[in-house]
Amino acid sequence: MLKIALIGFGTVGESVARILCDGTHEQLSLEMICNRDVERKVVDWVPRSVVWTSDIGDVLRSDVDVVVELIGGIEPATEWIRKSLEAGKSVVTGNKQVIANSGASLIEIADRHGGHLLFEAAVAGGIPIVRGVQEGLAGDKLIRVCGLLNGTCNFILTRMEDDSISFGDALGEAQTLGFAESDPTADVDGSDAQAKLAILSRVGLCSAIEAQAIPCRSIRPVEPVDFTYAHRLGCTIRQVSRVELIADSGSAVTASVQPMLVPTKSPLARAEGSQNVIIVEGQRSGETAFSGFGAGGGPTAVAVVSDLASIARGRVAETLLVANEPNVEVEVDFMAPQYVRFVVIDRPGIIAELAGVFAKFEVNFDSLLQEPGWAKSELPFVITLERCSTRAVRDALTEIGSLDFHARQPVWMPFLVGKEA
Amino acid sequence: MLKIALIGFGTVGESVARILCDGTHEQLSLEMICNRDVERKVVDWVPRSVVWTSDIGDVLRSDVDVVVELIGGIEPATEWIRKSLEAGKSVVTGNKQVIANSGASLIEIADRHGGHLLFEAAVAGGIPIVRGVQEGLAGDKLIRVCGLLNGTCNFILTRMEDDSISFGDALGEAQTLGFAESDPTADVDGSDAQAKLAILSRVGLCSAIEAQAIPCRSIRPVEPVDFTYAHRLGCTIRQVSRVELIADSGSAVTASVQPMLVPTKSPLARAEGSQNVIIVEGQRSGETAFSGFGAGGGPTAVAVVSDLASIARGRVAETLLVANEPNVEVEVDFMAPQYVRFVVIDRPGIIAELAGVFAKFEVNFDSLLQEPGWAKSELPFVITLERCSTRAVRDALTEIGSLDFHARQPVWMPFLVGKEA
Repeated sequence: MLKIALIGFGTVGESVARILCDGTHEQLSLEMICNRDVERKVVDWVPRSVVWTSDIGDVLRSDVDVVVELIGGIEPATEWIRKSLEAGKSVVTGNKQVIANSGASLIEIADRHGGHLLFEAAVAGGIPIVRGVQEGLAGDKLIRVCGLLNGTCNFILTRMEDDSISFGDALGEAQTLGFAESDPTADVDGSDAQAKLAILSRVGLCSAIEAQAIPCRSIRPVEPVDFTYAHRLGCTIRQVSRVELIADSGSAVTASVQPMLVPTKSPLARAEGSQNVIIVEGQRSGETAFSGFGAGGGPTAVAVVSDLASIARGRVAETLLVANEPNVEVEVDFMAPQYVRFVVIDRPGIIAELAGVFAKFEVNFDSLLQEPGWAKSELPFVITLERCSTRAVRDALTEIGSLDFHARQPVWMPFLVGKEA
Repeated sequence: MLKIALIGFGTVGESVARILCDGTHEQLSLEMICNRDVERKVVDWVPRSVVWTSDIGDVLRSDVDVVVELIGGIEPATEWIRKSLEAGKSVVTGNKQVIANSGASLIEIADRHGGHLLFEAAVAGGIPIVRGVQEGLAGDKLIRVCGLLNGTCNFILTRMEDDSISFGDALGEAQTLGFAESDPTADVDGSDAQAKLAILSRVGLCSAIEAQAIPCRSIRPVEPVDFTYAHRLGCTIRQVSRVELIADSGSAVTASVQPMLVPTKSPLARAEGSQNVIIVEGQRSGETAFSGFGAGGGPTAVAVVSDLASIARGRVAETLLVANEPNVEVEVDFMAPQYVRFVVIDRPGIIAELAGVFAKFEVNFDSLLQEPGWAKSELPFVITLERCSTRAVRDALTEIGSLDFHARQPVWMPFLVGKEA
């Protein structure tokens, strides 16, 4: 029998409690629930033996075997996890920020005190991707992880695509439906996916990159017109997180979180609504894909309880989060064909000027697309560029940005190509 | 250090040996290779310390910790696995027939002698689906498993679809390319998928069904014209394996392996070539999908070595293959809309006669489709039926089969609908 304390009784915490109280997991016993101002949280469907408290000290002093941390944020979560581990307890968490930032050192503490730190719920909710790469594909050397790790972005982008609505309107809808928080920054600007990708890089590629070192671009600049042009190019737009080992470099990687043009036939293009998709490439197993619900109380609670069940069986796989080389450099530059969308106050000579700047940076045009029916005063068109470095595009666009014909600043996105797509 | 003996040095065995000898898994040591007439198998790239033998007795008497069984077939594989376990060794196998038939009793032997029996490679090759359902989704109650479990069938059906070639030609191509065996019965007639589905039913749904109890229909009767009609109906055709708990029935299930009409937007329709896809539905996590390469030396070897790595870490999850109720009944009847394709020697009155028989069995027509351009002497057309039991269709078609207008016997397939699609 595993005695469990739950810290944080929000959506996921309540879902975990419901599973623990429904009688299907005889070896898991909920003993304590800790939440700020706990009185307002008390419900009548948990056994009367469960202790409700607002004091983390009660949890640390108790005889529970496992602490489930679901309060989110970096502090006090990190400190409470550390103290729980130092008290000889195991910890199960869904806190991606804590794991991305301090997972390796917390696991060392767990090892020293005979406990475990499990975090299946920290990445892609109900999809068992941490176990998938760490145990299921342990026999392979993985070289790439690529996926849609943020359901909010996927919801917003698919809404923009389906009904040609603006980013702002799609975000509003996501907030109304509970798919986005009132402050959507972490989701739409990428720091949520950044933390998840850093964790997958560590467990999957044994490459210990810092989350903040992953270059990260927001989906905010994407407009409905970009979907029009993307469709003409046989693509859609998704917030793609990718990390790939650089061949013959040890554990150095290229990595990014950003909106990308994804071919419509790619599994990444087919994720609907708030779903997550992760494609893993191994040297011997080829590509293996995992998809499902990456957020929400039910799926995330399943990941938490699966971790609890592993501990109850007494057979937790050694975690590989502690990689062989700490703080690997992330190469932010990578080669890809590029999509650049301009919105200009039209006049003769614009294309020639653009061509001149791109040529200076040795970047070649691939195609020029212009849908009819737009006003000359705010004319959107698209240039696609042959495979080139993201640095070259960035540098060229910095120079182009100072030209006088822009109605709005240009927006660029790489194409996801080849095996990655 | 885990000492390993390999029984069977074919495609998968050689791939396993290559991984074990490439230096990436320091804790795994290949000690012995056993194969019939082993002299012709000896290669120079394994360490000279490895013992080559044709005598299983050498393996059983040796001090290896784990026996990897890759000879296939039921006997002598079952006996050799049993003897290895009785000798206190663990066993890793990719043998779906042995696991489906005798897995539960072999695991009891393993438990009694302190060893393990692992079989990730027995289902869907490189896709970590056994761990996925058994550990990654342990926190949920799974209610349905549905997928494409046979890469050969998928290769043949996608080839028939893409180039309108016959089953026989597509099979010939698959054989030439090594995707089908010279005797393709187990793949195309379904017994391979049947065994894998029985294993997934046990580990995923805790429903201990016998493989042979799963109703199973061949893909041989499918013709290129069926893809023409399927496309008109927004579908394609796939060999679908499905098992689903019957609500409020304990562990009773409906199950089948058969060609079905699958909507083109379904993840099952998108599997290319020899890929496998498995969709798992849980009460709380919703649908989670796994896809990748279900066969081939590399992917299957990765599954074997992942199992070896689990044993080496000394932390193997307790297997759930031994279900709570042995030999659960399989309900062979299930409700679905149906596709029936006729090829007739045309004359007036055929539709009326068909309508009469279907009405007798209380089955309603949904639509009638007939592509132009066929000879009256061998005219294919399709009737779709409203949701009805497979038993009703079968009974109606038995009676219809004796009517005088058939150029070839009718072919029927259920539609995969609703959440399953």
